[in-house]
Amino acid sequence: MDGDETVVADLVTTACSGDRRAVARLLTLVERGGEPADAVAEATHPLAAGAQVVGITGAPGSGKSTLTDGLAASLAEAGRRPAVLAVDPSSPLTGGAILGDRVRMEAAATAGAFIRSMATRGHAGGLALAVPGMVRVLDACGFDPVLVETVGVGQVEVDVVSVADTAVVVVTAGWGDAVQANKAGLLEVADLFVVNKADRPGAHEARRDLELMLDLSEVTGQAVDRPAVMLTTATEGTGIDDLWSAIQAHHGRLVTEGRLVGRRTRRHRAEVRSRLEHLLTEAVEDRIADLPALPDGVPGTVARRLAAELLGE
Amino acid sequence: MDGDETVVADLVTTACSGDRRAVARLLTLVERGGEPADAVAEATHPLAAGAQVVGITGAPGSGKSTLTDGLAASLAEAGRRPAVLAVDPSSPLTGGAILGDRVRMEAAATAGAFIRSMATRGHAGGLALAVPGMVRVLDACGFDPVLVETVGVGQVEVDVVSVADTAVVVVTAGWGDAVQANKAGLLEVADLFVVNKADRPGAHEARRDLELMLDLSEVTGQAVDRPAVMLTTATEGTGIDDLWSAIQAHHGRLVTEGRLVGRRTRRHRAEVRSRLEHLLTEAVEDRIADLPALPDGVPGTVARRLAAELLGE
Repeated sequence: MDGDETVVADLVTTACSGDRRAVARLLTLVERGGEPADAVAEATHPLAAGAQVVGITGAPGSGKSTLTDGLAASLAEAGRRPAVLAVDPSSPLTGGAILGDRVRMEAAATAGAFIRSMATRGHAGGLALAVPGMVRVLDACGFDPVLVETVGVGQVEVDVVSVADTAVVVVTAGWGDAVQANKAGLLEVADLFVVNKADRPGAHEARRDLELMLDLSEVTGQAVDRPAVMLTTATEGTGIDDLWSAIQAHHGRLVTEGRLVGRRTRRHRAEVRSRLEHLLTEAVEDRIADLPALPDGVPGTVARRLAAELLGE
Repeated sequence: MDGDETVVADLVTTACSGDRRAVARLLTLVERGGEPADAVAEATHPLAAGAQVVGITGAPGSGKSTLTDGLAASLAEAGRRPAVLAVDPSSPLTGGAILGDRVRMEAAATAGAFIRSMATRGHAGGLALAVPGMVRVLDACGFDPVLVETVGVGQVEVDVVSVADTAVVVVTAGWGDAVQANKAGLLEVADLFVVNKADRPGAHEARRDLELMLDLSEVTGQAVDRPAVMLTTATEGTGIDDLWSAIQAHHGRLVTEGRLVGRRTRRHRAEVRSRLEHLLTEAVEDRIADLPALPDGVPGTVARRLAAELLGE
């Protein structure tokens, strides 16, 4: 056992005894990547008990943070041990999240939920690598459920949410959002829709638009389990309990219909695939960096030659 | 010369003689990928004359399509041969672009610009693979400039725009958009900002907010060439000519300061890297598909073992 592994093993023991600072340190190690992150993965994998993972995504301004805050607060008050992993898009220019996202989730934090924000940019390997490992840490430390909140704007965010046990997509009033959700590919991954800000004009129309799009998808035969469309007003706490009931109902169907195992196998495969692609990309970068100059010529031809060399063909 | 290559060579000859249907067919071949796309790349690479490439990106609703339409129309009327490559996010659920994006760009089409829409989803290999090859076809067929329009919501779209000669980022009034542009990493890649819908309240404040963010980035020493912030009202055609002048001024600085070569080398490298990563990802998928079952265990460990096998280490 080398130095990293000893430190990590101690941290894991401390974290599992309920020390939240130790949990935070483990999460930081995973977020930074590299060998310490690998050591954390090795140590926490056997401890992970299979916590329920709920993905929550939506456009900026949809109120999904407030909703996640309310949900986590309500779960903590009900005696559960929820953790929130909030993924903030941020810029290297300003060095972090701009809107002070780290001070959101006040209700949940006060109620005892564990809250962690992470930036989507500027850390090695990206979201698809860090998030599954961070969920594993939280699971190993006894948090359940783990709520993963992301901004649903990019493919990576969609991928992260789509491997949750239950993927919740938050929209607000107006046709525009339903269309945007569709464009972003969220209709396909959503297990549940939430029309938030239900007190505003157009919320019921937004629900109807979503139902219409779902009708269309049933016609094309893609829906296995038609997503419910819930209405919430997160700022007032309205609809939060019903939302949790709907999440539980979805999770219950996954269990009774034997589909939970499939979801988790898919999650495992997605993580292996992301890591494998990352390792190969690193090998590519190393190979390109080793070249005195990138050969001129048709890029596809240059790439095929380099790939053949790399794969030893 | 096999069948594909003969067909492609004939198509390229026809396309270069000014037959727009042949150009469209070449673009379709590139978009579909595979061996025909490779044959098109081989055939068009020597013909590409180095057309000016302008990337235009912005959030949904920023009016960037109308702006691109106006710009292309104005260029065509001035005797240039502009082409537009408009990247539409779309959903496999509905089988294509939802808002009828293909019927946008009416002014430009009427004025004689070549317009091509492509969907971001559902075609093999993705945007990063298809766009550079499509630009090469348009360049080889004598179109200049080539305007590439994407929705600036995902990393891939940002990457596509960031390798243009000039990257134009379109925002609208309101602090929110400047913040979103920053969050999406657009501040770093923009060579020019456009505050569109300048006739609406808040446009001048949006410009000031952007200037403020740019001041901040100069302090951190990241700006080589500070982006200008232009005001346009695309629906009225206001500011379009000034925008083109600003694009030309930026392009002129790239040329006189010897930076255009660097940009294009970066574009070449980015394309080789995307293709290489794609080829290796395909090798990964093949390898995973060949396994009777993905091994259980810590995903990182499983991935490292598979990577070592693949790379013959």
